[in-house]
Amino acid sequence: MRLLVINPNISESVTALIEAEARRSMASGTQLTMKTAPFGVAYIETRFEALIGAYAVAQVAAEHAEGHDAVIVAAFGDPGLGGLREVLPMPVLGLTESALASACLLGHRFSIVAISQRISAWYREVVEANGLVGRLASIRALDQPLPGIGSVQTDHAQALRALCLRAVEEDGAEVVVLAGAPLAGLARTLRGELPVPVVDGVSSAVRHAESLVALAPGKATRGSFAPPPLKPNAGLPPAIERLLQRR
Amino acid sequence: MRLLVINPNISESVTALIEAEARRSMASGTQLTMKTAPFGVAYIETRFEALIGAYAVAQVAAEHAEGHDAVIVAAFGDPGLGGLREVLPMPVLGLTESALASACLLGHRFSIVAISQRISAWYREVVEANGLVGRLASIRALDQPLPGIGSVQTDHAQALRALCLRAVEEDGAEVVVLAGAPLAGLARTLRGELPVPVVDGVSSAVRHAESLVALAPGKATRGSFAPPPLKPNAGLPPAIERLLQRR
Amino acid sequence: MRLLVINPNISESVTALIEAEARRSMASGTQLTMKTAPFGVAYIETRFEALIGAYAVAQVAAEHAEGHDAVIVAAFGDPGLGGLREVLPMPVLGLTESALASACLLGHRFSIVAISQRISAWYREVVEANGLVGRLASIRALDQPLPGIGSVQTDHAQALRALCLRAVEEDGAEVVVLAGAPLAGLARTLRGELPVPVVDGVSSAVRHAESLVALAPGKATRGSFAPPPLKPNAGLPPAIERLLQRR
Amino acid sequence: MRLLVINPNISESVTALIEAEARRSMASGTQLTMKTAPFGVAYIETRFEALIGAYAVAQVAAEHAEGHDAVIVAAFGDPGLGGLREVLPMPVLGLTESALASACLLGHRFSIVAISQRISAWYREVVEANGLVGRLASIRALDQPLPGIGSVQTDHAQALRALCLRAVEEDGAEVVVLAGAPLAGLARTLRGELPVPVVDGVSSAVRHAESLVALAPGKATRGSFAPPPLKPNAGLPPAIERLLQRR
Amino acid sequence: MRLLVINPNISESVTALIEAEARRSMASGTQLTMKTAPFGVAYIETRFEALIGAYAVAQVAAEHAEGHDAVIVAAFGDPGLGGLREVLPMPVLGLTESALASACLLGHRFSIVAISQRISAWYREVVEANGLVGRLASIRALDQPLPGIGSVQTDHAQALRALCLRAVEEDGAEVVVLAGAPLAGLARTLRGELPVPVVDGVSSAVRHAESLVALAPGKATRGSFAPPPLKPNAGLPPAIERLLQRR
Amino acid sequence: MRLLVINPNISESVTALIEAEARRSMASGTQLTMKTAPFGVAYIETRFEALIGAYAVAQVAAEHAEGHDAVIVAAFGDPGLGGLREVLPMPVLGLTESALASACLLGHRFSIVAISQRISAWYREVVEANGLVGRLASIRALDQPLPGIGSVQTDHAQALRALCLRAVEEDGAEVVVLAGAPLAGLARTLRGELPVPVVDGVSSAVRHAESLVALAPGKATRGSFAPPPLKPNAGLPPAIERLLQRR
Repeated sequence: MRLLVINPNISESVTALIEAEARRSMASGTQLTMKTAPFGVAYIETRFEALIGAYAVAQVAAEHAEGHDAVIVAAFGDPGLGGLREVLPMPVLGLTESALASACLLGHRFSIVAISQRISAWYREVVEANGLVGRLASIRALDQPLPGIGSVQTDHAQALRALCLRAVEEDGAEVVVLAGAPLAGLARTLRGELPVPVVDGVSSAVRHAESLVALAPGKATRGSFAPPPLKPNAGLPPAIERLLQRR
Repeated sequence: MRLLVINPNISESVTALIEAEARRSMASGTQLTMKTAPFGVAYIETRFEALIGAYAVAQVAAEHAEGHDAVIVAAFGDPGLGGLREVLPMPVLGLTESALASACLLGHRFSIVAISQRISAWYREVVEANGLVGRLASIRALDQPLPGIGSVQTDHAQALRALCLRAVEEDGAEVVVLAGAPLAGLARTLRGELPVPVVDGVSSAVRHAESLVALAPGKATRGSFAPPPLKPNAGLPPAIERLLQRR
Repeated sequence: MRLLVINPNISESVTALIEAEARRSMASGTQLTMKTAPFGVAYIETRFEALIGAYAVAQVAAEHAEGHDAVIVAAFGDPGLGGLREVLPMPVLGLTESALASACLLGHRFSIVAISQRISAWYREVVEANGLVGRLASIRALDQPLPGIGSVQTDHAQALRALCLRAVEEDGAEVVVLAGAPLAGLARTLRGELPVPVVDGVSSAVRHAESLVALAPGKATRGSFAPPPLKPNAGLPPAIERLLQRR
Repeated sequence: MRLLVINPNISESVTALIEAEARRSMASGTQLTMKTAPFGVAYIETRFEALIGAYAVAQVAAEHAEGHDAVIVAAFGDPGLGGLREVLPMPVLGLTESALASACLLGHRFSIVAISQRISAWYREVVEANGLVGRLASIRALDQPLPGIGSVQTDHAQALRALCLRAVEEDGAEVVVLAGAPLAGLARTLRGELPVPVVDGVSSAVRHAESLVALAPGKATRGSFAPPPLKPNAGLPPAIERLLQRR
Repeated sequence: MRLLVINPNISESVTALIEAEARRSMASGTQLTMKTAPFGVAYIETRFEALIGAYAVAQVAAEHAEGHDAVIVAAFGDPGLGGLREVLPMPVLGLTESALASACLLGHRFSIVAISQRISAWYREVVEANGLVGRLASIRALDQPLPGIGSVQTDHAQALRALCLRAVEEDGAEVVVLAGAPLAGLARTLRGELPVPVVDGVSSAVRHAESLVALAPGKATRGSFAPPPLKPNAGLPPAIERLLQRR
Repeated sequence: MRLLVINPNISESVTALIEAEARRSMASGTQLTMKTAPFGVAYIETRFEALIGAYAVAQVAAEHAEGHDAVIVAAFGDPGLGGLREVLPMPVLGLTESALASACLLGHRFSIVAISQRISAWYREVVEANGLVGRLASIRALDQPLPGIGSVQTDHAQALRALCLRAVEEDGAEVVVLAGAPLAGLARTLRGELPVPVVDGVSSAVRHAESLVALAPGKATRGSFAPPPLKPNAGLPPAIERLLQRR
């Protein structure tokens, strides 16, 4: 099983966090390819940054997906996920939908703990787009500057743990989702310290990717997740153009 | 990894179908314990039958869960699932929620194909209880007598495949869920014959159970999935009583 | 009109509270049969306890329903209600759905006041299952140990009244539902002390039961509330087996 | 118990139908006052006609409610109901909300059968306003001219029965609501002829009114159903002005 | 373009506020007719007052709409709007729906700031009726007596601005709607003082009315917004009767 | 008022249709700048094509928005809209949200008529993202190949009109939205031929853009539509980089 994990941001330090947690989570036979977006921003907090990240992910996936059994879009918010699911022949997973799938198997209502206030409204929209806002207990987020995006989870360890506890005690969270690739691995660190199950996007996505490959449910050839109909295009990066022409 | 799979119905033929699909789906290191409900009905189609199945599952789980890493309630509709999730120390999964988790990773809207008209309204309520009715394209079901519950998927192969196709073509299903333990394994048989991904509850539950064990998200000690508070009880089967007293 | 009221818990003290309020509420011609669950827990706060209560109620109903015109499942959360509605030939009502029906006739948004924090998440799920979460202003609950379940409403009179007032003032409750059989009769006590209508499950259920008997809307013979289809069963208590065989 | 029933339409023939069904449904001690709107239209099918009916009902209620224990707004769609609930000191009920309350106690999903295509969209909005659209299986309606509004249920007996059956068979209705005062009493006639429970607005409202009077839940003095704050007014019918000044 | 703006309240001071903001907002070619309700209350805060306002608006519209290209119901809560949309041949707009339409073009979630606590629950119902409660961040309202309805926005300038800021900071409002004709023009005054876009009902309605006239989408002749079917009526004001007879 | 309209597709023939309808719709003082995506596909039917279109629109907007008072993203589905709303200092509008805003002012439930079956599921998701799925009566679409995207509305005039009528008659549409830039102007052509109001995205967006400029509600400086926080970026087109650095 060969797995391509794409960081839609340009931060190699975050890619390293993702890779570390992916390696800790994956089955022994899984082979990992890590890619970092060649353009974009340090970390995605907004819809506009997600728009850029989506295009970067599309380009990386178009260039590198071939030969892999599954692809993971490794930013919370899942930039580009729906589109890639149409166009790639293998399963594609995002951190948000994977974390939510795990959370839904562990309790009825979940809270999301995130790295910045700014990110919260957009995350809420992503939960809405997943049709799961009825199970969202709350989104709580750090309210402090983030000097190093690769060290958020250590710089703010106490504050993040406190947010988790408040989600449980004040918002009724039955599961806590630690959101955002910069927090990859924190769920593992917090194990045993929180009174409810804790879910991480990266490890969830890796496990669910392996499961989908094993289950082999098939690729859509009809309906809205079939590859886009052939039609004229122009000015696209060669890899994306090849993807659109492939039948 | 030791996995306990409980069939909430009394049909050994269905247990055999479940076991076969579980064995095809599970990782090499997984050890399987199969149990069939000691009392109840041949197959669950109604809320009342689910009520009986829930209690039977509770008793089996109370007697046999110890020593396992995860438990699967192997009837669509997930009888007793929420309760067992409170009281057992390991992850507990149901066929419906597991199939829906898989389906949600494969498309936006899914249809459910089921074995009887009667079962449909109750399945819809279960999807509602999972908060996912907004992603339900339709429920389609056989409309014929079921002489042998263990052979539904072969007796009605054509009709089931036709229902799947109509869900895709008429209802906009982007994923099809084959619902009910009696259809265990059918998704595997239909592979490549349907124009959208097909999901099976048993294999989904097995894979998700293995994932949750690997992810080790922790057991709730607070909130509504913590074990029930200690309190007086009476007249319970010894295994259930032990479960309620365990701290 | 003969009414069977079943307490799904084993607490005779709660049965007494239920009976007292039922007698205060019922019409002069109504005859009351009270039954307490022969097995189970002191009071139901969790999904697992509700699962047990549901089976206990089913057994009591199967044994005693005959000769009655209506049956009430007298625990908030309505354990077993949907199933019994299928299988019994007379109307079956639960405390939650009855209280919600009353509340909906008195205002647009209601709050529920309950006896324990633990119970709140499950009550919310029951409101969701009734499709009424859009009209739920809040659930507020006692946060104190309950030494005697039969005396909660007197032991915590002040705190319960305060919760009601906060629901009105802070949550916008236009109606308050006092939830749980242990609070049976409290609405009557609080009459005139709260600035919005107050609803009690027991008296609501008794009155609605009498109404349904009078309206005689008919029993479902088709659809998902018809009796379950005949099919093999095994190991069931004789009364339940008779219920399943009855046509 | 004194009950005021107001027909928001000008059709005495419909008032007679309402009265007949109210008398068949009410308890022996109930005393009935019937009033017909002094202005308006023959029967309400549209939002504009409901607006007129609401004002007519307000005027009749202002003039005649005093001395009664409960008031029923006897047109489906409940014109003026929310407003009267604020301003009158006794319970006020509408046919729609009363029928829905009954239906919710009999099954999970209900269909509404109505007298005209035109009326359907507005009825749907009323169900939405009651927060119950998730439990609405369908609205089906006659598609024929209505020569005599007082004889709809006899003129179209066959067609109405056929609509009920289609709602059960094609839409999954577990309960059928016969909607509109012109159909008052039809549920009684159809008893035993339909495979699911049938609900009538008038008899439901009468019974629920009697129940609310018996339960005596109290009148709101705070929140949005308290009487409107005192403020200047002008040009109002004297009875309405008195109502607004009463404290 | 001739625009009829109807104040459903009797307060000429509020009509003056509405007119001033309408004149500031309208295009140069627009001609304005202002009308104040001939009967009713000083300002609408409740469902009952809205019922009166709806009828007053209907009468004014029936008398004066002819010769205009669009009609605005100039009270938040939009009393009578749906009915008038059926019966009048030109576009009819309300302040609430117009403000919500503007707000939805400026952000995903909006808060409403209102003039009284009492008004809040009813406003929420109006947002629900518009199907937009999923985008409602909060409703915040003044909690002080309103001596002069025509001077609320100046009397409580500080408090209103503070409510707007709290909606942004505590509730996540991405847009603020200043609700109620008495606040007409305040959005203009607050320009540049709030960190999110601010929307006013009157100016929104005026602009949207001009747009609908320009777009000329056509009047419904079928479906639920076609004029009500012809039928007997009685006792109606002559202008309303003419409206109902017009074909 | 200077208006920038960006066609996210590469088809100049569609840009010409958009421009023609924009010129017919805009106020006399409005100045129009038209831009066509420099890269992408002939027309957007899928999530992946929308992802590409979003990035193309972002680049065009970053290069050309300066000096304009409002920007329109002129493809149904609104690719990139939320992101641009964050990053641009002037109002940004999409065809879908603009058409829905118009439709909501004309009726309660609307249908969308679209140019291809494939496009329907994605359009539904966009309506969901706008929070308006509760008001969606149906989506109906052509089921024929589209030889020339610039001539769809003339090639399929009959079929499109028939779809509109079926939406009214079978789905209860009270308003019809003609969806997709290739249908720009068709609403104008169909005027008077349909029994309900018809809405066009381009003309709606132009009018709403002019309205928002006139209303001047202000640009968010806080909350999730404020410009993205400053942070490192790399590899971006210079115009996008400038946009991200602008403060």
